[in-house]
Amino acid sequence: MRQGEKTAGDSVEDQSGSTHTGTMHSTGVRNLWQSPRVEKILLPYTLRSTEAHVRMLGDSQLIEPEVAERVAAAIIELAEKNRAGEVFLTAEDEDVTSAIQRHLYYTLGEDARVVKQFFTPRDQFSTDIRLWMKETVVGISLSLLRLRNLFVALAERDRETIMPSYVHQKKSRSISLADFWLANEMRFARDFNRLEELRERLETLPLSEAVQLSSGKFIERSRIGLYLGFETVVENTLDAASDRDHLLEFAAFASLLGVHVSQLASDLMTWSMHEFGFIRLPRPFFFKDQEISNKKHQELLGIMRSRPAAIFGRMQEILSAMKGLSINYSQDIEECLPGVIETADHVTFLVEMSLALLPQLEFDVDSLRDAANPVVVSGESAIDYLVNRDVRRPAAEKIIEQVMQYCKDRRKQPIDMTMNEWNLFSQAFDEGVYDAVAITELEQPVVYNNEWLSPDVSQRIVLNVERARKDIERDRAAITAFPD
Amino acid sequence: MRQGEKTAGDSVEDQSGSTHTGTMHSTGVRNLWQSPRVEKILLPYTLRSTEAHVRMLGDSQLIEPEVAERVAAAIIELAEKNRAGEVFLTAEDEDVTSAIQRHLYYTLGEDARVVKQFFTPRDQFSTDIRLWMKETVVGISLSLLRLRNLFVALAERDRETIMPSYVHQKKSRSISLADFWLANEMRFARDFNRLEELRERLETLPLSEAVQLSSGKFIERSRIGLYLGFETVVENTLDAASDRDHLLEFAAFASLLGVHVSQLASDLMTWSMHEFGFIRLPRPFFFKDQEISNKKHQELLGIMRSRPAAIFGRMQEILSAMKGLSINYSQDIEECLPGVIETADHVTFLVEMSLALLPQLEFDVDSLRDAANPVVVSGESAIDYLVNRDVRRPAAEKIIEQVMQYCKDRRKQPIDMTMNEWNLFSQAFDEGVYDAVAITELEQPVVYNNEWLSPDVSQRIVLNVERARKDIERDRAAITAFPD
Amino acid sequence: MRQGEKTAGDSVEDQSGSTHTGTMHSTGVRNLWQSPRVEKILLPYTLRSTEAHVRMLGDSQLIEPEVAERVAAAIIELAEKNRAGEVFLTAEDEDVTSAIQRHLYYTLGEDARVVKQFFTPRDQFSTDIRLWMKETVVGISLSLLRLRNLFVALAERDRETIMPSYVHQKKSRSISLADFWLANEMRFARDFNRLEELRERLETLPLSEAVQLSSGKFIERSRIGLYLGFETVVENTLDAASDRDHLLEFAAFASLLGVHVSQLASDLMTWSMHEFGFIRLPRPFFFKDQEISNKKHQELLGIMRSRPAAIFGRMQEILSAMKGLSINYSQDIEECLPGVIETADHVTFLVEMSLALLPQLEFDVDSLRDAANPVVVSGESAIDYLVNRDVRRPAAEKIIEQVMQYCKDRRKQPIDMTMNEWNLFSQAFDEGVYDAVAITELEQPVVYNNEWLSPDVSQRIVLNVERARKDIERDRAAITAFPD
Amino acid sequence: MRQGEKTAGDSVEDQSGSTHTGTMHSTGVRNLWQSPRVEKILLPYTLRSTEAHVRMLGDSQLIEPEVAERVAAAIIELAEKNRAGEVFLTAEDEDVTSAIQRHLYYTLGEDARVVKQFFTPRDQFSTDIRLWMKETVVGISLSLLRLRNLFVALAERDRETIMPSYVHQKKSRSISLADFWLANEMRFARDFNRLEELRERLETLPLSEAVQLSSGKFIERSRIGLYLGFETVVENTLDAASDRDHLLEFAAFASLLGVHVSQLASDLMTWSMHEFGFIRLPRPFFFKDQEISNKKHQELLGIMRSRPAAIFGRMQEILSAMKGLSINYSQDIEECLPGVIETADHVTFLVEMSLALLPQLEFDVDSLRDAANPVVVSGESAIDYLVNRDVRRPAAEKIIEQVMQYCKDRRKQPIDMTMNEWNLFSQAFDEGVYDAVAITELEQPVVYNNEWLSPDVSQRIVLNVERARKDIERDRAAITAFPD
Repeated sequence: MRQGEKTAGDSVEDQSGSTHTGTMHSTGVRNLWQSPRVEKILLPYTLRSTEAHVRMLGDSQLIEPEVAERVAAAIIELAEKNRAGEVFLTAEDEDVTSAIQRHLYYTLGEDARVVKQFFTPRDQFSTDIRLWMKETVVGISLSLLRLRNLFVALAERDRETIMPSYVHQKKSRSISLADFWLANEMRFARDFNRLEELRERLETLPLSEAVQLSSGKFIERSRIGLYLGFETVVENTLDAASDRDHLLEFAAFASLLGVHVSQLASDLMTWSMHEFGFIRLPRPFFFKDQEISNKKHQELLGIMRSRPAAIFGRMQEILSAMKGLSINYSQDIEECLPGVIETADHVTFLVEMSLALLPQLEFDVDSLRDAANPVVVSGESAIDYLVNRDVRRPAAEKIIEQVMQYCKDRRKQPIDMTMNEWNLFSQAFDEGVYDAVAITELEQPVVYNNEWLSPDVSQRIVLNVERARKDIERDRAAITAFPD
Repeated sequence: MRQGEKTAGDSVEDQSGSTHTGTMHSTGVRNLWQSPRVEKILLPYTLRSTEAHVRMLGDSQLIEPEVAERVAAAIIELAEKNRAGEVFLTAEDEDVTSAIQRHLYYTLGEDARVVKQFFTPRDQFSTDIRLWMKETVVGISLSLLRLRNLFVALAERDRETIMPSYVHQKKSRSISLADFWLANEMRFARDFNRLEELRERLETLPLSEAVQLSSGKFIERSRIGLYLGFETVVENTLDAASDRDHLLEFAAFASLLGVHVSQLASDLMTWSMHEFGFIRLPRPFFFKDQEISNKKHQELLGIMRSRPAAIFGRMQEILSAMKGLSINYSQDIEECLPGVIETADHVTFLVEMSLALLPQLEFDVDSLRDAANPVVVSGESAIDYLVNRDVRRPAAEKIIEQVMQYCKDRRKQPIDMTMNEWNLFSQAFDEGVYDAVAITELEQPVVYNNEWLSPDVSQRIVLNVERARKDIERDRAAITAFPD
Repeated sequence: MRQGEKTAGDSVEDQSGSTHTGTMHSTGVRNLWQSPRVEKILLPYTLRSTEAHVRMLGDSQLIEPEVAERVAAAIIELAEKNRAGEVFLTAEDEDVTSAIQRHLYYTLGEDARVVKQFFTPRDQFSTDIRLWMKETVVGISLSLLRLRNLFVALAERDRETIMPSYVHQKKSRSISLADFWLANEMRFARDFNRLEELRERLETLPLSEAVQLSSGKFIERSRIGLYLGFETVVENTLDAASDRDHLLEFAAFASLLGVHVSQLASDLMTWSMHEFGFIRLPRPFFFKDQEISNKKHQELLGIMRSRPAAIFGRMQEILSAMKGLSINYSQDIEECLPGVIETADHVTFLVEMSLALLPQLEFDVDSLRDAANPVVVSGESAIDYLVNRDVRRPAAEKIIEQVMQYCKDRRKQPIDMTMNEWNLFSQAFDEGVYDAVAITELEQPVVYNNEWLSPDVSQRIVLNVERARKDIERDRAAITAFPD
Repeated sequence: MRQGEKTAGDSVEDQSGSTHTGTMHSTGVRNLWQSPRVEKILLPYTLRSTEAHVRMLGDSQLIEPEVAERVAAAIIELAEKNRAGEVFLTAEDEDVTSAIQRHLYYTLGEDARVVKQFFTPRDQFSTDIRLWMKETVVGISLSLLRLRNLFVALAERDRETIMPSYVHQKKSRSISLADFWLANEMRFARDFNRLEELRERLETLPLSEAVQLSSGKFIERSRIGLYLGFETVVENTLDAASDRDHLLEFAAFASLLGVHVSQLASDLMTWSMHEFGFIRLPRPFFFKDQEISNKKHQELLGIMRSRPAAIFGRMQEILSAMKGLSINYSQDIEECLPGVIETADHVTFLVEMSLALLPQLEFDVDSLRDAANPVVVSGESAIDYLVNRDVRRPAAEKIIEQVMQYCKDRRKQPIDMTMNEWNLFSQAFDEGVYDAVAITELEQPVVYNNEWLSPDVSQRIVLNVERARKDIERDRAAITAFPD
């Protein structure tokens, strides 16, 4: 019996000896669930968390401080090489962690061993994702601040540009083009705020397991957190292992932002149609210093409208993957990562694209003003006027339609009709109708914001712009205060 | 020509005269996009916003204060009748608003007319939805506080109950059942926080249009906001008309909560399987004072696991509906409402179900402790031990598997093997192996939380429970402070 | 010991004696997972499957044929009462099946007992759903045939109506409005075909379990199938219990149909905008004999565009609910039913709405023809012309833009320019340019279908219409041949 | 005036002269919406469609047949170079088409010009996607045939292996492990059929536009279709431009397949848990000739369970992207492509993974048989027995639970109880109870398929296997008959 066991044991050792072939084999498999892209993105964060761990070990006298210093220096050097584009992972490496160990062993020999006395791969993976997520969130927040600033600048530029608003895709009251930009600023400001709230929830180091070293001593998690910029340390091991709320929350943030970008692009596409003529597409259009032909430009708007669908899909993918899992670590959790990374890519792309494209659009101020067609607008007002006089809406609509046709045939404005003419169509009209059909002018009628009402609507926009600028400054300060 | 026109006008008036039939006809159509359910839910909020409007008109001397008082009183009376279940909407009413006007006209005669001098239907609709959303959010927040409290109470009850944790669905280190409850508390605490943040973003009255009365005077939006409990007033008319971020944000909150409920139910289902035997399903199970047979009980867990999919679907529905719309009011926006209402229903149901079910589950403490199988656990530790001694993991796994089979055949524990026996399997073993395979006991090994490490793990749970209780109290205070 | 057991037994019997209260209690719970709506929809099918079962029992001499006849007659009577709107389910009934048993017991006394010797609730539930699905599929197929017919009729009506097509939302070549209708016919024809294929997959009776009666004899499943109109009987018990492919396949069909309806509505909405002026919304619009005001009409198009999002959400809901289940019966499977029923409702509504709305739209033939702007069109052709002569596209675009501006300034058509004028802009122009910029006329240029090319494009449409009519007839025959 | 225009013209030419820089710039932009991966995948199909076009031109005497032959040969050579891995696209190429033109120009000089007289990029893009989709569909169909064959082989191997089935995750009647494999065969057979139906709908060449050559002659679309293996030619230009039903239909097929794979993996994961012990994970596991450690194996099952979520997300992405578009060509349509390609990747991966993994799983026949616990099963039967005797189910459940406890305490089987003992618990028991609790044996009780009932259940499985084999052969023949 003993021999058989020994043989079994030997064969096992033999097999483990065939390192090279074995690992080469496993390479292809590694990529099944961790694409090279994911590995490449996580690598810098794995290096940072490894360095923090080693420094803690030295600080806590769990290893020689000099050794810790030497290893940390070697890790920093690796990080620099990686940034410089040196090949890091080879087919021989089982994963990112073992690649790091291999490199360190090459440089440091036995000292490299200390990086093994580490948290579990699960724990490190959770930590690295969170580091990536934090940095990604800050990057996107800064882009959003630039985008909000752009909207404010456009609002200032276009505050005198009158245009129609729409309800159910029918023309309604006149607004200023600045109102359109400011509405967008408010949307992306809400996105920014949601992202800020997520960032605060990312402030917990998710290290939870295996913190007792084989020496019987314990690692100091809060010290690692300090090195990595986390404010607190997770207190529950199950929650640490299974919580991916932040990935879902990021996907939800991205989905709302996607709605905003898509709607923005959709309006711009409509406005650039021949039938509208509000926008002339820029020629040439520049994106990241590249010239893009006019033809391509319309396609780019199409991408802005369409790409958010990919974000929605990722949101659904992660929800579906997380549903009904056990509250534990499982492979399904790792599977969510590519989707989140792609989501971050899409968000960054959409924001950058907006930043590049919007300032280059040429608005046809005359077309916009013409479209804020007083005849149509006064028609709407006239219908309201009749309804307020107890004419049922369907009847009122028909009456005013006839009035409009009457005016069109005679090439006159409703405001120029006599009371007799009005009463041809309904006895419900009295002198008040002239107020109702008075031609809408920017300086006079847009009274939806009575608090800031002024004879000069531009004045209101100036106030709105001021408020927005102040908010942006406050938000920028919050980001900058963030201990990166 | 003139006569023809007059005729046309007349026929229009005639048509508008056939009021009764006309509106009866349109009833069926109304329900196409606004189900009776949606109307019934919105009605109380429409009454409240109408009342606030009338009071503002009186306060601002835009109408006689006495009239305002009389109309407001009539509205309150209507609200009471509605609460009492009196039929409110009939087939004759075009929509909720016109039903209210009809009722008021019946009671007040001409005075009822003042409620027409109102914001547009769009504006009122936006306001009513937001009132509903605010109240719904507060209601769910309170339920979540109760649920978090329940988890804490269960944690206290079960802090001595040892059980296995799992990784990749394989047994791993032992934990306390309290850890499971506390992990859930943390998940729902995050849900609670997200809901709180949404609530803050709901504090803006979305009234934006038509605030100039026909008299040329203006309504005071901030006064209406005061009556309805809004802190600020929207400043941009396009944003007011098109913003439904809060519906999407609520759907996203609900989706994350759905993930949490689904995972909780999934673990409980698994644990109640014959093969696990951790849970005996309660007999009888009570839900809202109704007795539910044991058979049904398993089905209820199935619902908790499955229903969140309906929430995910609604999230996707709303995203898809909102994508690519113009930044304006459109019917598509109204279409989002049923999905959000159903989402709120599902969330409420899932939380209530959890509150009813969880305290009634009977845990088999012995089965749980037996399952925290020391042999298996020490096997895991022994593999780690070998890996730390530079045996490659696949080889280490095979070696320990042989050791385990060896022990099983001889009915002994690994800790009882001699060093000679260990070395039969690999020369990498030395005396340190005994530490690695020491049987895991609750009093000794669960060292994942070194900051609060103590010989008595219960002590750590006591601390966690304390922290959770404090958080819940703080959150409850925040809700109660909320000006409802 | 014996006494204690007896007591336990007694108390159990007692509890079971309190039938009334018990079932009243459980009523509310029943509705948790089976809404009254679902029950109401399934009831007729449960009656049918019960009847078929009883008839089989009689045919097979498993019960007295006279009894079978009597029970079947009673079931038919119940079905009639149910159709007539008599209250069927009361709070006392645990579910639909027990309600049926109660009613039968009331009429037949002990004979009613035979309906209990039935397949399991799971089996009956699967059968009833499939019966419902089959009937629903046939109903929708018939509506789709009507819709396809409508598109063909519209194509015939509008075959002389020229209009622009669009690429990237920019005007492109001219087409006939008939082409638009025929494209839609082809889309819904594909939907029809997919539904037909699903119907064929529904031809398997999913009865699989509990077919051995307590008498030791066996039920004849294929005979039940015969009564219910199924062609084959499922051969695998696990597949019978867990397969809900048909629900998902229906949801997928519905999603594609939703895309088609949404795109159709989107084009119609755009065309009815003031800026386009292609469509005048009908006044009045009739839906199910109800008059709908012009104002509402635009909202209905909004619903057609938006409602498909609800279908997409249901698709996602079912996918998410089914993912990762065990291949067995579970509550999660039942939970899919409401979503599928709602999907069927939405599909029916969207098709009916299209049938009602489309024939009432008034197209402005002149606006359509004017919009097929020859200047713009010939511009596009001229760009292609230059590209074919090796001018790079961006350059070609700029050149032609200058040409167009030049023509606009001089109020002339490109075709009226001299060769000298052309060569002002580029030497790449030669005489061939005149062909390229020849004004597009319906009788001449739309040459995308060379096989049927004719000087009279109407001729091609006539051929297409003929082909479509033939397909519709073939498809109608297939449906009618269907053994209902 | 003339001079200015000339200058403008000149500057345009200049700009177009800076070809090299210009195209280099545009490279980065190209990748915004067409990833290198998409381009690489489409390239072979673009070459094929270009070749078919050129051959048609020669056949129709639209160009010199010799020239056609020369160009076609050059294209074939390019395709070979591309297969051999030679770099094809450079930063200078605007897109795949212009890269091909560049290569051909280099080889052929002026003759290369004929490939430009082609359908529009849109048309070619639609054609190339369809070619890719057709080939992808056939490839997946063949894999599915192999998978179905595997399930049949496993069913044959395991037909004597008895195991429990589950209902609501509770043990129910015994089945054969073969039943599990055959249920899966039926699921993937349905997937196969759906894919076949899609393949038939792919048989239409979507070339529709620009078929009039500048010479005034027309291209022969049906001849191109012949070269490319399409059976018919699209008849409607709008449908050709906008129809992407096949992409959505493929995504729907993939989603259903994803449900099947996910559920299969989920059962296997559960069965390999320590608490079940039905499966020993293979050691080593081989995937594509690579050895995968036991540890990784569980992760692979996790991937099979989780990855389908990515497919669901893509389905949703495409639905969302397509919703509400105009029925025309737009960029949004192109944006769907990456999602479909990823879907195809995921499907291929999941099927290949299943093919590799399933035959290597080691089932513990004894554990499976033990789990088909007769005591539990007979308990279920006994409950049914009581219910059939009019004991209400909750009461019946309690009675049998007491019986089971009684037996357990006395270490006896229910079948060994006397009638007196039975009647201790309820008077509803009579001699019939012994049939109800007879121990379930494979040879005797699994009677759910009465048509093929036999004393030897294996016999039924043999019949099922036979049926499945015949179906697979029929389906294989259908594929092979496919004119590739």
